[in-house]
Amino acid sequence: MPERLVIIGGDAAGMSAATNARRSRPAADLEIVAFERSDWISFSACGEPYYVSGDVSPIEALLVRSVEEFAKSSITVHKRHEVIAIDTAARAVTVRDHLGAREFTVGYDHLVYATGASARRLPIEGVDLFGVHEMHVLDDALAVRRLVEQRPRRAVIVGGGFVGVEMAEAFLANGIETTVIAAGDTLLEGAFDPDFAARITAAVRGLGVRVETGHRVECLHGEGGRVTSVGCGDRAIPADLVVLAAGTVPNVALARAAGLRIGESGGVWVDDHLRTSLPGVWAAGDCAETTHCLTGRPLNLHLGTIANKQGRIVGLNVGGADEVFPGVLGTAITKCMDLEMARTGLTEAEARDAGFDAIAVTFEATTAAGYWPAARPMWVKAVADRSTRRILGAQILGGATAGKRIDALAMAIWNEMTVDALLNVDLSYTPTLSGVWDPVLTAGRVLQSALGPATTPSR
Amino acid sequence: MPERLVIIGGDAAGMSAATNARRSRPAADLEIVAFERSDWISFSACGEPYYVSGDVSPIEALLVRSVEEFAKSSITVHKRHEVIAIDTAARAVTVRDHLGAREFTVGYDHLVYATGASARRLPIEGVDLFGVHEMHVLDDALAVRRLVEQRPRRAVIVGGGFVGVEMAEAFLANGIETTVIAAGDTLLEGAFDPDFAARITAAVRGLGVRVETGHRVECLHGEGGRVTSVGCGDRAIPADLVVLAAGTVPNVALARAAGLRIGESGGVWVDDHLRTSLPGVWAAGDCAETTHCLTGRPLNLHLGTIANKQGRIVGLNVGGADEVFPGVLGTAITKCMDLEMARTGLTEAEARDAGFDAIAVTFEATTAAGYWPAARPMWVKAVADRSTRRILGAQILGGATAGKRIDALAMAIWNEMTVDALLNVDLSYTPTLSGVWDPVLTAGRVLQSALGPATTPSR
Repeated sequence: MPERLVIIGGDAAGMSAATNARRSRPAADLEIVAFERSDWISFSACGEPYYVSGDVSPIEALLVRSVEEFAKSSITVHKRHEVIAIDTAARAVTVRDHLGAREFTVGYDHLVYATGASARRLPIEGVDLFGVHEMHVLDDALAVRRLVEQRPRRAVIVGGGFVGVEMAEAFLANGIETTVIAAGDTLLEGAFDPDFAARITAAVRGLGVRVETGHRVECLHGEGGRVTSVGCGDRAIPADLVVLAAGTVPNVALARAAGLRIGESGGVWVDDHLRTSLPGVWAAGDCAETTHCLTGRPLNLHLGTIANKQGRIVGLNVGGADEVFPGVLGTAITKCMDLEMARTGLTEAEARDAGFDAIAVTFEATTAAGYWPAARPMWVKAVADRSTRRILGAQILGGATAGKRIDALAMAIWNEMTVDALLNVDLSYTPTLSGVWDPVLTAGRVLQSALGPATTPSR
Repeated sequence: MPERLVIIGGDAAGMSAATNARRSRPAADLEIVAFERSDWISFSACGEPYYVSGDVSPIEALLVRSVEEFAKSSITVHKRHEVIAIDTAARAVTVRDHLGAREFTVGYDHLVYATGASARRLPIEGVDLFGVHEMHVLDDALAVRRLVEQRPRRAVIVGGGFVGVEMAEAFLANGIETTVIAAGDTLLEGAFDPDFAARITAAVRGLGVRVETGHRVECLHGEGGRVTSVGCGDRAIPADLVVLAAGTVPNVALARAAGLRIGESGGVWVDDHLRTSLPGVWAAGDCAETTHCLTGRPLNLHLGTIANKQGRIVGLNVGGADEVFPGVLGTAITKCMDLEMARTGLTEAEARDAGFDAIAVTFEATTAAGYWPAARPMWVKAVADRSTRRILGAQILGGATAGKRIDALAMAIWNEMTVDALLNVDLSYTPTLSGVWDPVLTAGRVLQSALGPATTPSR
């Protein structure tokens, strides 16, 4: 009799777990069954804005693997099957089959809790009006694309986070007057320091996006069941189309009901092997807690990169490996038209909050040699710790190719480099792709200038 | 009486030394005088192909700082002044003033030897024909641009290295039929492994460049003093314009005559502080030896990045600092039209030659999510050491944004990461700029698959 691995949630984390478990254990040794409550499995939620924009089509392009493809690896996936209860004592889950309108119970030896996250519901009136959508699952993307094809004049996005910025691009690219309403003082508040986020906000406004900051949306107005405007303070901002992008929350109700420990971040608590508090149960992805490498603090992030990495590790561990998930740096990137924005490590505010004696610098650079016609300006904010001289974080805003430089900085931070060591690293240079001092190295130089000379040699 | 710093060579290394020495020591404490034998100081040689192509204009755009700008920092620069002898016992140099046709002697307390490199002379007939140029100093770029403006039909580049590839782009972009004659079996031989260099060569051919490999050019033919063809084996390849790009050699004759130790790489020997073998004399840049971080072996590379870093360190050390130059990874990058090519660390061949138990993998990836229309294919070859599981090197070929990924890999190699640690690093992801597993992480994954599971947890 093979063991059985049951997976709750058929997206990145769950299906990565399935695939990696299968790599180590054949079907004769491990049966793998995944239950997904929606109609979609293994899709790229991050790609939805680009379906809405029309750049990517058909919607199936966003599907990574199909039920049939998983079946070829002897991984069974049931769509429209929702796990509604976990009995950790009996090691069994209760499944509601939304297609067959029936419920049944399945035993497990290993359970992967990978329920993901859901769009945060805004407690405002009018969210059910025609023309109003969240932006989370593929059905949302399909619905919003259909609206875009009707050539609306004005779109309003409620929420100034990453999804808000990406949807602004999608609408702008379709010639729609676009307004983003952000609750905070800037776009991307919290992800970037206030000064840097203000710079980003100004740059996005420069692209033609209206950004209304410091507003909580109170209600949506409609006529004949169709949205017409967004109530914002004492104003009503006209809208033919409204996207609610107020962030996401982890799906932990089922875990809580089953007695799994919920971490202080709000995600399901896991140890460094991604085991939950109860035997045989693992968690991965948006619903799980993770740890910040620099602060050791728990956090709950909803990113495809983390979901894939965690899913992989759970799968390998179910397969008998001894893999540790080392935590995250909070790296994130997005773009809006030709503007790229990225961050990694700690912002200045986060660094101070975590007790570091933080020093921060901001400088302007270019994406290529200054004389190269395609060179674009970019700005870097870099944060270091005064006592250890370690680089702690970086924020980037700039033209094409600026953003991905965050990866080299993430690699430096991950390896606990000092600013003094950083600036001597042998990075690549050709005038069409960077200055002779790549901005990554300049971050080290400018931080070193701010800190003063090191008292020991740089390496 | 202030001390005097004399600098031989007014380009990247020498002038970085000057600038950084000045930062630590004011003019009242340190006089700084630089002698440059040519008419040009502090220029971007790497930018010359883009002046030739017409993308960058005027030539002055390639000048970083002028004599007048240095004068504002109390740094005196004499152009057309060639140092012809160094008396290390008397601590003085003999200078020939090519403008005033006179010679004089200047004493020094610190001497920076930063004479750079020169184009390798090919021992072939016809190099003095009209239409034949090396590609090294700005005068070369000016001359070749003038020829390009005369709309030649056919150009031949002798030499298949980085400069050869960049010049091919410059000519191609001007609608000139372009042939590159490479002595080896591929373009960029040695910089990339043979299999990967073959891939690059095929891709460059795909851009429309004719590449003739395995040929040594024996002579250049002309009519009326003007080049007409390049003799190559038993053929004569027609050419209205010929660029000789057969590499560069360090300018060490003066150092050798002065009794400075020359390293086995052919560059001036230096210690880790960039001191030469004689007191008070430092060396930096193309003329100086450096060390490979992974092999500990000496090498002599001619790259602006190294020149700038070494010049900076010499300047700081003259200023009283205790700065160490940590060595290099041999990182390099170039592009040809939309193709980017980059390398860092050790090739498979170099790794074996250095005694590593090397394992290598090559895989195809995309520069963005596969469904993003602008995603371009890219190939990565990655090399690791079987016993330590450390990543040793990487080679990249691909469309726009592929190449600069080498920096994150260089950072990983610099920090001696294992492939197991590499694949979990929190790098950035958005579908328009990478797959959810950035190819940098995929390098770790594919190498891990090839190595088999690690016996200890990944971190």
